[in-house]
Amino acid sequence: MKLATLKDGSRDGQLAVVSRDLSTAHFATGIATTLQQVLDDWNFRSPPLEDLYATLNGGKARHAFAFDPRHCMAPLPRAFQWADGSAYLNHVELVRKARNAEMPASFYDDPLMYQGGSDDFIGPCDDAVFGSTDWGIDFESELAVITGDVPMGASPEAALDGVRLLMLVNDWSLRHLIPAELAKGFGFLQGKPATAFGPVAVTPDELGPAWKGGRVHLKVESRWNGRRVGLCNAGPEMLFHFGQLVAHVAKTRNVRAGSVVGSGTISNQDRACGVSCIAELRAIETLHSGAPQTPFMQFGDTIRIEMLDDSGASVFGAIEQRVRALHASADADPPAQDRPLEAAADPDAASAP
Amino acid sequence: MKLATLKDGSRDGQLAVVSRDLSTAHFATGIATTLQQVLDDWNFRSPPLEDLYATLNGGKARHAFAFDPRHCMAPLPRAFQWADGSAYLNHVELVRKARNAEMPASFYDDPLMYQGGSDDFIGPCDDAVFGSTDWGIDFESELAVITGDVPMGASPEAALDGVRLLMLVNDWSLRHLIPAELAKGFGFLQGKPATAFGPVAVTPDELGPAWKGGRVHLKVESRWNGRRVGLCNAGPEMLFHFGQLVAHVAKTRNVRAGSVVGSGTISNQDRACGVSCIAELRAIETLHSGAPQTPFMQFGDTIRIEMLDDSGASVFGAIEQRVRALHASADADPPAQDRPLEAAADPDAASAP
Repeated sequence: MKLATLKDGSRDGQLAVVSRDLSTAHFATGIATTLQQVLDDWNFRSPPLEDLYATLNGGKARHAFAFDPRHCMAPLPRAFQWADGSAYLNHVELVRKARNAEMPASFYDDPLMYQGGSDDFIGPCDDAVFGSTDWGIDFESELAVITGDVPMGASPEAALDGVRLLMLVNDWSLRHLIPAELAKGFGFLQGKPATAFGPVAVTPDELGPAWKGGRVHLKVESRWNGRRVGLCNAGPEMLFHFGQLVAHVAKTRNVRAGSVVGSGTISNQDRACGVSCIAELRAIETLHSGAPQTPFMQFGDTIRIEMLDDSGASVFGAIEQRVRALHASADADPPAQDRPLEAAADPDAASAP
Repeated sequence: MKLATLKDGSRDGQLAVVSRDLSTAHFATGIATTLQQVLDDWNFRSPPLEDLYATLNGGKARHAFAFDPRHCMAPLPRAFQWADGSAYLNHVELVRKARNAEMPASFYDDPLMYQGGSDDFIGPCDDAVFGSTDWGIDFESELAVITGDVPMGASPEAALDGVRLLMLVNDWSLRHLIPAELAKGFGFLQGKPATAFGPVAVTPDELGPAWKGGRVHLKVESRWNGRRVGLCNAGPEMLFHFGQLVAHVAKTRNVRAGSVVGSGTISNQDRACGVSCIAELRAIETLHSGAPQTPFMQFGDTIRIEMLDDSGASVFGAIEQRVRALHASADADPPAQDRPLEAAADPDAASAP
């Protein structure tokens, strides 16, 4: 099934079931108010949601309405854990080359993973707001799972059984803040701002045969300012599967329901696939010509991230975000729709009483 | 006021107001069920809690009951953010010396901070469960604040205004896992297992004049297996105050209500104050005699952490934990109270029908 959280002015939003083709939705009223409630009590609450999903797909749900991703929050608008792996060798190699950092010796048998902030996840069509373009604003297209309870010491297989839902992720990164931050030795904090998620979270069965060995064997398309920069397959080159990533978190502690564990930026060795972040593009440019040519993102830039299945249908819906300045003064003129109302008002109005 | 979360079998527990002297408690029924609800809506829900607190302290609360810290979960049993600073110079110097790591050049003007897991906080008297003593089990006595909403880019002063509550923390660390983990460059994950918190969270006004300049000018006592190993003042040597630590998190993102931000291990330059973790003790031993003498914690060990005010009263109640093996076979005989019931039963009972 596919689940979304719709904006209703509250911090956790309103849970809705969304049809497989993403055309219609139905509030989960009477079953659960929020997605965390479902995750807390999955065996009890997911079966009636599956029933509602079947009814909705059959066109028989009485209070269905048109689904609009612009009304979505992140499926989990805030989570109790966000741990993001970096499971694609090609990405790690390229990005480390770009900042003159070593490959960790343990890379092939010990997942690389950071702990991120999960108190303020943002929706698929929310603006991404930053204080300065000097921070080196970059998108990162990736996938994540939401887990149920996974006990300390769980095997990768048991951890994989704990996967409840999958999501599409834009793991925003601030490339110019990262080197100094990582040099301090304690990992990311300011270099990883609020993360955005695709409109719907989906159960693994929605992926059919594309969900295999704990990996998603489908392509993620990344379009920067309308131009396709990447079409990367998330499956074959994921060095550690999601069960291994979750088990890595669970080695020394219990992983509780609603934990979000990410794959890291999807990346393919074949250069024809393009990239899922700008840092990789700049690393490739540096390898070819000695210096990066492509600047990071500017205020007003857009990013669109989407995964299509083999029939061409969107699995999660699209992430479609615009980069916006925190303070209007941090930039040149903001786009028209962001201007203060006074500036857009009729000049004659100034003389009105 | 002082607030606790009592075990009721649910994931978020039951919110209670606790008297200033920690002798009695009263459920917050009718005001809020959980602490997160209060934090989400502080201006609306905290005044009636303050009223109940005054009534309870006056001995007039009709349904008061004896407060027992053993029934406590962490005040926030799970949180949407846990970012832990390392604001005591002496601790950072000693621990880095002990693992042959450099002091970060930016230490004096850029807080050192890691992002931790917050999906499974543990209560003040819960066992601390680990897979192996080979992991290098260590306690860390420290303080933390719980924030309200603090917007991106907030000043340290504005961030300090966002502090709602303070807590006592045992930030368990697995010292033998940390060097290899930090060498990978992405910070802590397996090296920082589930964190424990003192019985009650308190509003800053409870500290009176000891809450000054965003720091708590009181001493934290640490007793390992009953022996006092540290009595360290949390105030004067905290290089960054809590407002600066919260503002550090808020530089590139919004900090949302219920975020927990820690001080790092409390540490004083004066050796007579002792230590708030074993790693410091081992570092001092190494400096004196070339090698550490004191081993890290063993299964069955206990740790007691408490902060007293100038009148000798406990501010947060005590953290009192026992270290326990995840698998019974990982250790020798467990302590009597952990043995299965059969082993403790009357031998004569075996012949009963």
